Amino acid sequence: MSFAAHVVVMLKPGIADPQGQTIERALPALGYEGVTEVRVGKHIELRLDADDAEDATRRVNQMCERLLANPVIESYEVSVR
Amino acid sequence: MSFAAHVVVMLKPGIADPQGQTIERALPALGYEGVTEVRVGKHIELRLDADDAEDATRRVNQMCERLLANPVIESYEVSVR
Repeated sequence: MSFAAHVVVMLKPGIADPQGQTIERALPALGYEGVTEVRVGKHIELRLDADDAEDATRRVNQMCERLLANPVIESYEVSVR
Repeated sequence: MSFAAHVVVMLKPGIADPQGQTIERALPALGYEGVTEVRVGKHIELRLDADDAEDATRRVNQMCERLLANPVIESYEVSVR
């Protein structure tokens, strides 16, 4: 069976996020005050063959550990449907 | 009131996605066959002050048009809670 998976990869809390900081500093100049806690991560979509949803989730989690994320500084969330 | 917003920014269909292609080519070497349609986008989280959820959504959509996305080649999806 074929499954669609979404992965969200974010820097862990406490890890500096220069992209987010840059956006946060740029927004007031465009007239957007009061925007805080900007964090930028990755959103990955993919399609994979697997026996069932559980198998698909397990495989995508492994892909995150080995390739899609850096588990030292990033956390990830997998959803399969 | 303070709202948390999530934005997903993806390249539009038909726009080449070198990051996704690189991941797709790397996965078989790690033992993951049958993975296709890999697309990589941005996941942005932020917190903002707004009168209500509708106002917050409207403002984040404007931020996407003006800063967070490139509407020529990217589509975006805003969710506020």
